[in-house]
Amino acid sequence: MRIAVVAPSCTLKPEAAERVRAIVAQRADCELLFHPQCFLSHGHFAGPDEARLAALREVMADPSIDAVWFARGGYGSNRIAGAALADLPDPARAKIYMGYSDAGFLLAGLHKTGLDVAWGPMPQDVLRTGGEAAVERALDWFARRDPAALEPALQQPAMAFNLTVLSNLLGTTLEPDFADVDLLIEDVSEQLYRIDRTMFHVAASPNVRRVARIRLGRVSDIIANDPEFALDEAAIVQEWCDRSGIAYGGRADIGHDAANRVVPFGARSC
Amino acid sequence: MRIAVVAPSCTLKPEAAERVRAIVAQRADCELLFHPQCFLSHGHFAGPDEARLAALREVMADPSIDAVWFARGGYGSNRIAGAALADLPDPARAKIYMGYSDAGFLLAGLHKTGLDVAWGPMPQDVLRTGGEAAVERALDWFARRDPAALEPALQQPAMAFNLTVLSNLLGTTLEPDFADVDLLIEDVSEQLYRIDRTMFHVAASPNVRRVARIRLGRVSDIIANDPEFALDEAAIVQEWCDRSGIAYGGRADIGHDAANRVVPFGARSC
Repeated sequence: MRIAVVAPSCTLKPEAAERVRAIVAQRADCELLFHPQCFLSHGHFAGPDEARLAALREVMADPSIDAVWFARGGYGSNRIAGAALADLPDPARAKIYMGYSDAGFLLAGLHKTGLDVAWGPMPQDVLRTGGEAAVERALDWFARRDPAALEPALQQPAMAFNLTVLSNLLGTTLEPDFADVDLLIEDVSEQLYRIDRTMFHVAASPNVRRVARIRLGRVSDIIANDPEFALDEAAIVQEWCDRSGIAYGGRADIGHDAANRVVPFGARSC
Repeated sequence: MRIAVVAPSCTLKPEAAERVRAIVAQRADCELLFHPQCFLSHGHFAGPDEARLAALREVMADPSIDAVWFARGGYGSNRIAGAALADLPDPARAKIYMGYSDAGFLLAGLHKTGLDVAWGPMPQDVLRTGGEAAVERALDWFARRDPAALEPALQQPAMAFNLTVLSNLLGTTLEPDFADVDLLIEDVSEQLYRIDRTMFHVAASPNVRRVARIRLGRVSDIIANDPEFALDEAAIVQEWCDRSGIAYGGRADIGHDAANRVVPFGARSC
């Protein structure tokens, strides 16, 4: 299993790459290639749009690569997602793509285009407390589709998104078909009023209303609301599901943390 | 001109009401009624949804009221906007509604329903530096449609929205028809990466792509981006307009500040 790492959003920290390399060196089931683009820096991004797109297109087209692993989130993959999906070379269809957070823009578009994608931990997660376990979990799933890596209550087909990313891809060319999907959402570093506003937006979508159910992962690092918001995150999500005729399926084991599990999109990747 | 003030979002500060009352007392052309609901508090909101909705419905239905003025922004008008628009009593159609920021959810829905609305300063703006001028400007427009209050380069039909509010109302029942509209946007207290992400979302909308042009008001109190973002707010908006085939019309004289001008929606209100 040859895994290429590219950074369509923000720059990967070199110390994260080193620690992930050390983990992979202890395993016999995978080989990791960090594309030099991971370490570029251009303002907010891991290099200009052109460089991030070229690196992604390069590994997508490489028939020797079995998997593309997005280095980290942040922001920026939406700026290149449309171009990344154009005129796909055949080798792009023979691999699996994994990431989460801002990489959700790419996961959505790649899945919509018929490629195999999964929500799951990324290399930069190694810097989190307990992050080695997250990286091992991702590699276990890459290398041998270890069911222990999966979110434990998945119903197929499933998808997972950062709620704010999901909100921002609705109505764009990246928006996938949500019919009958077990839709897992999570968020990080938002005020609760924003979670409420974003749920208003997402739950209004006729496409989203076709999901089998919505389940809520962790909403972490909530920014203080002054005054305190009237509802917590679970009550917010449940209320907008109720208002919109969407089944609320309770909590899910995903989030911006080391415990984040793998959610393969669709039915084909399990 | 009898103007009723209600607070569909957050609680109005009593000192703002006092200062606006003092301004109105010096004028002979209008009378102001602060609904007691303005001063309710329920978590983030100026009272529970039911209380905010009831106050709004009450003043909408009152034939003695000529104008409804939203007290302030914050967050929450979207939670009651749908219900506010249902089964409208006739007197609701014989008045003008004004506000901005979070009140944009209501402006959009009311305009879509055929009512007269305008973007413009609100009572709580009196607490800003120079805020008395903003309140006088709003009253000049309410009482005598003073053209000096208007954004100076408007082409009809026009609309104005907080960019983040606009993004969150796309795809909801509140979304108005943007065909041939001079669309003014502004934002406050966001990081530039969020402005970029929101423009990606907004500019992807086929409805938004039908505007005559987009003009950019002030983007104030920008939250620091670490590292610095690669583009400023004007370059961001221009780029997404260019990518989406939308004409970019330059800057506009609106924003979360005392200089904020009035933008009547549609052609009928000028």
